[in-house]
Amino acid sequence: MFGGIEAGGTKFVCVIGTGPDDIAQTQRIDVAGPSETLKASVDFFLRARAAGVRLDAIGIGSFGPVELRRLNPRYGFITTTPKPGWSGTDIAGPFAAALGIPVEFDTDVNAAALAEGRWGAARGLASFVYLTVGTGIGAGALVDGRLLYGLGHPETGHIAVPRRPGDTYEGICPFHGDCFEGMASGPAVGARFGRRPELLEGADQAAAAELVGFYLAAGVRSITYTLAPERVVVGGGLSALPGMLDAARAELRVQLNGYPGLTEHAAPGFLVRAELGGNAGPAGTLILAEQAAASATAAARATG
Amino acid sequence: MFGGIEAGGTKFVCVIGTGPDDIAQTQRIDVAGPSETLKASVDFFLRARAAGVRLDAIGIGSFGPVELRRLNPRYGFITTTPKPGWSGTDIAGPFAAALGIPVEFDTDVNAAALAEGRWGAARGLASFVYLTVGTGIGAGALVDGRLLYGLGHPETGHIAVPRRPGDTYEGICPFHGDCFEGMASGPAVGARFGRRPELLEGADQAAAAELVGFYLAAGVRSITYTLAPERVVVGGGLSALPGMLDAARAELRVQLNGYPGLTEHAAPGFLVRAELGGNAGPAGTLILAEQAAASATAAARATG
Repeated sequence: MFGGIEAGGTKFVCVIGTGPDDIAQTQRIDVAGPSETLKASVDFFLRARAAGVRLDAIGIGSFGPVELRRLNPRYGFITTTPKPGWSGTDIAGPFAAALGIPVEFDTDVNAAALAEGRWGAARGLASFVYLTVGTGIGAGALVDGRLLYGLGHPETGHIAVPRRPGDTYEGICPFHGDCFEGMASGPAVGARFGRRPELLEGADQAAAAELVGFYLAAGVRSITYTLAPERVVVGGGLSALPGMLDAARAELRVQLNGYPGLTEHAAPGFLVRAELGGNAGPAGTLILAEQAAASATAAARATG
Repeated sequence: MFGGIEAGGTKFVCVIGTGPDDIAQTQRIDVAGPSETLKASVDFFLRARAAGVRLDAIGIGSFGPVELRRLNPRYGFITTTPKPGWSGTDIAGPFAAALGIPVEFDTDVNAAALAEGRWGAARGLASFVYLTVGTGIGAGALVDGRLLYGLGHPETGHIAVPRRPGDTYEGICPFHGDCFEGMASGPAVGARFGRRPELLEGADQAAAAELVGFYLAAGVRSITYTLAPERVVVGGGLSALPGMLDAARAELRVQLNGYPGLTEHAAPGFLVRAELGGNAGPAGTLILAEQAAASATAAARATG
């Protein structure tokens, strides 16, 4: 049995199970300060273990930016987040220390990408991108069946996007103003329309769908030209905005403008909605835990 | 001994050897129509073979877009290029047919990326991007030691870039107007300044360096946030514009604005000039040939 934590900016979701259809226990923890939030999460697993659950490993998908380089002394930490109080927080350490089992640590979007690849909208694909459009914008990319890493992890929400004609909004990203996330994330849409996106109705909702659809297409265009994915899977709260994905598909055709001439880019299956919804992240953390267990087993064999 | 062809839009460079310091023969062929150009290239290798050179395999790095999926009936073809007469040209086929040896086919930028990784400015790195800024703009990306592919190959020159303040130039990309390539490739700079970039002097040269540096930084910013490379290596004619790379490094710091807080991004080694210059592409085709020979040997062993 595996444990998983989707460590989000507003809530931590803790799960015990093996996949989205086999979740034995789950608990949602509203985020307070780092130490209270982490203690409540660790306690969930300690209670389960005290009740007889055998946990083989833990997977964590965290909001970021995070340190993923294992040789870095701050591996498993959130690095420099604008979220007050959370910069420099050790996320992975408390779980490893309290539970004494293997821990795999990654970004929340990488976890969700793994889950959509195994159980969701990207089943069977070797190269795809999972893109979340919600409180923030971020992506996890699979390249030839493996998660893309380099100098840390991607921060795809911060790419440049062309401005929609007539759009004079300055953008809400504290670092870049009018980047992809600055123009089209949930808080940006909320600020533009004066209410939270999920509360929009009628003409405002339709206008928001067109707006987000434009910027989603703009972001997907640059992602497509950089990563050459077979499919882009869109999750996050704004993926549920009625009409948004249709608007994005139409706009993507305009922005690619037939280049480089791949019929796949214009097919309805190229840009699709995530299938696992809010379960993608938590389910993906169970894949991370599975990987941690497999690595530990392999290491144990190698050292006899 | 390996053969290699860098199939560019204005010239084909044919080489025989094993690496940049071991080129036994080379020939430059100015591009005419597809059949004449390909025949002249094939003849170079046939003459070498008649003179006693034993060729084990051929590597081709081609301008594109190209079809790289081996199961596609048009594998080895240039697909839809704006270059008159070259759309739908079979590049790999004539070499395989005439020489009867293994052929590996890839993009010109992927070949150059391999060469810079083995012999040039990206030695020892697992994840980096080779970016050419010349007649066109394009990139080859290594992720965890392997070339990035997906639904075909990247077309990174066509990502969106923010417009430099005050820049009203419409861009020369026939598909996207003001994309990265449309704003900052050699023909764009030539059109802006009324003469070819390599002929610019004095204030015009300095202005061009600032201009290209701005857009290079803009492109590298989105590449950095999408691919998380350890280094970006810049080749192509415009990489030689005096002062351009310094301008790009300064502007990149402005555009990243400290996010996500990796000191590596601000270090001088993050954005560097290619070391192999014009030899990167031809040398890389010899690595492609080496891979073709290795694959053929492995396949022969597997089938007994």
